[in-house]
Amino acid sequence: MLFLNERDIRESLTMEEAIDAIDDAYRLYESQKFQMPTRMKLTDEPNALIVMPCLTDDAIGTKLVTSFPNNEKLPTLHGLVVLNSSETGEIQAIMDGSFITGFRTGAIGGSAIRHLAPEDTKKIAIIGTGVQGLYQAIAASAIRPITDIYLYNRSAEKLDAFIGAFQSWVSAPITIHKTDRVEEAAANADVIITTTTSNTPVLTNDAEVLAGKLIVGIGSFLPTMREFPDELYSITDQIFIDSHDAVEESGDLITPLDNQWIKKEQIQTISSFIQQGGALTHQSDKSIIFKSTGMALFDVVVAKAIYEKAKQNDVGTFLR
Amino acid sequence: MLFLNERDIRESLTMEEAIDAIDDAYRLYESQKFQMPTRMKLTDEPNALIVMPCLTDDAIGTKLVTSFPNNEKLPTLHGLVVLNSSETGEIQAIMDGSFITGFRTGAIGGSAIRHLAPEDTKKIAIIGTGVQGLYQAIAASAIRPITDIYLYNRSAEKLDAFIGAFQSWVSAPITIHKTDRVEEAAANADVIITTTTSNTPVLTNDAEVLAGKLIVGIGSFLPTMREFPDELYSITDQIFIDSHDAVEESGDLITPLDNQWIKKEQIQTISSFIQQGGALTHQSDKSIIFKSTGMALFDVVVAKAIYEKAKQNDVGTFLR
Repeated sequence: MLFLNERDIRESLTMEEAIDAIDDAYRLYESQKFQMPTRMKLTDEPNALIVMPCLTDDAIGTKLVTSFPNNEKLPTLHGLVVLNSSETGEIQAIMDGSFITGFRTGAIGGSAIRHLAPEDTKKIAIIGTGVQGLYQAIAASAIRPITDIYLYNRSAEKLDAFIGAFQSWVSAPITIHKTDRVEEAAANADVIITTTTSNTPVLTNDAEVLAGKLIVGIGSFLPTMREFPDELYSITDQIFIDSHDAVEESGDLITPLDNQWIKKEQIQTISSFIQQGGALTHQSDKSIIFKSTGMALFDVVVAKAIYEKAKQNDVGTFLR
Repeated sequence: MLFLNERDIRESLTMEEAIDAIDDAYRLYESQKFQMPTRMKLTDEPNALIVMPCLTDDAIGTKLVTSFPNNEKLPTLHGLVVLNSSETGEIQAIMDGSFITGFRTGAIGGSAIRHLAPEDTKKIAIIGTGVQGLYQAIAASAIRPITDIYLYNRSAEKLDAFIGAFQSWVSAPITIHKTDRVEEAAANADVIITTTTSNTPVLTNDAEVLAGKLIVGIGSFLPTMREFPDELYSITDQIFIDSHDAVEESGDLITPLDNQWIKKEQIQTISSFIQQGGALTHQSDKSIIFKSTGMALFDVVVAKAIYEKAKQNDVGTFLR
């Protein structure tokens, strides 16, 4: 079996190929030809092990993630993806699951931009410049002719590390703007991407700033979390989600539904939208929301794509 | 993290140490200080992925096993054990799960012999000389002064491979007898170990042959499977199991309970027997049964013991 660390994975699959894999995952999601039971969670408060297997027609994948929120020197999350052959059950590859999670989540945002943002989108804002924000910026730059990225982070000292990491990935001449206020970042951008784990809205509650834009929500994955402000819902007719579960998982959907700021009928999976070849109405006074909470199907489809390319290119450490 | 293949694991932990680890697992089982949710099974008939996480006070382990019964050249089962630190969640080791399964199942049989067979047990019979039978023979030889092993297998041509493999593990001067009939193997032995996946009893239905002996059942793990013959239950008062689930999992317990050949009160976990320091009554006209169906707790405790020894001895491939 093949061991693939972050470097191996980066060498194997480009972000654009990862975005293609996400679109493949959406086709599978619509076909319903997969098995993805509810994730298994073993908790030893405050720590947890989360186990996420998924079986498709041509791959068997399992992601294991530990969450240790009190880690000081080490990351909170540690992940591993195991890929088994769907023909023989053999273990094909073991991969850095933390990296795959960030990488494929970037690709989920990239796919949303591919399908929901104008072709000539040039300016994006990243609210929250952690690892997730980085991969979102990389994915946006892979799929649109980005010229300007506006960054906002609660602790401004993180911005320089973000810029360094971004420039090691993306060589295109993109101007990166550090901003002191969310409003400034949001006002300048055509696509706004939020990647925080905030429990209160991080985006400015100003319809004028948000109107006419695609708002991509990556961070909130619990009912208690919220990134989007109340006013956003008053100017949004079209809301897309990456899986049906998102409606039950994220406070950015639960709260507005509970308060009847939006109706369930406004929410559609992006997979059904893509399959139906749906047309978007971009209006200057309306926003479009894409909200992701992720699912194991993405991990297995992306891991399979990584494995195939790694094999082709002789990348990775062979273990026996 | 450390990658440990079969050779690394054999170099790290002796069978006797694995038997000690099983006894540690029994102490944990009694203390109830662990989490072991019902295994998760994803099925694509006839194939399956089975996911078995377990969390103890000092280890987090997950075993992944694929079962592909139509494999011709490759084994039916492929397994992997992932060990995470219970202090930080970091991935500590990835191990050959197929080998661990056989090795720890051997150690389960070895522990049963340690606690249920006379100190001077010298002769054992192995019914079913596949991989499971091999590790049972190795474990018995590690824990008792075995002089003679009587082998029976439905296809006799497998016996030579078994003998070769056994002798590569065990250097003690043990005489191995190939037999043509189950009765012959069983009649000569003090401990009889069955390791088949038969749906009908494999042991001879003759109380005289079975009386006065410890019968260790390893093979039957489904309600449809049976290794033990009807008569065995008429001469058995004391039945030990490795986990409470065994009573619902194995046809060797379900069938006699359904037929009222035995009462539920006769069945006890070996862990509670050990903890209570219970005394056995060895009677020449009675048999003692130990029936194992395994559980993820064994995998995580044995994997943790392997990892600690591998680290001490600098064994394995370090992956980063």
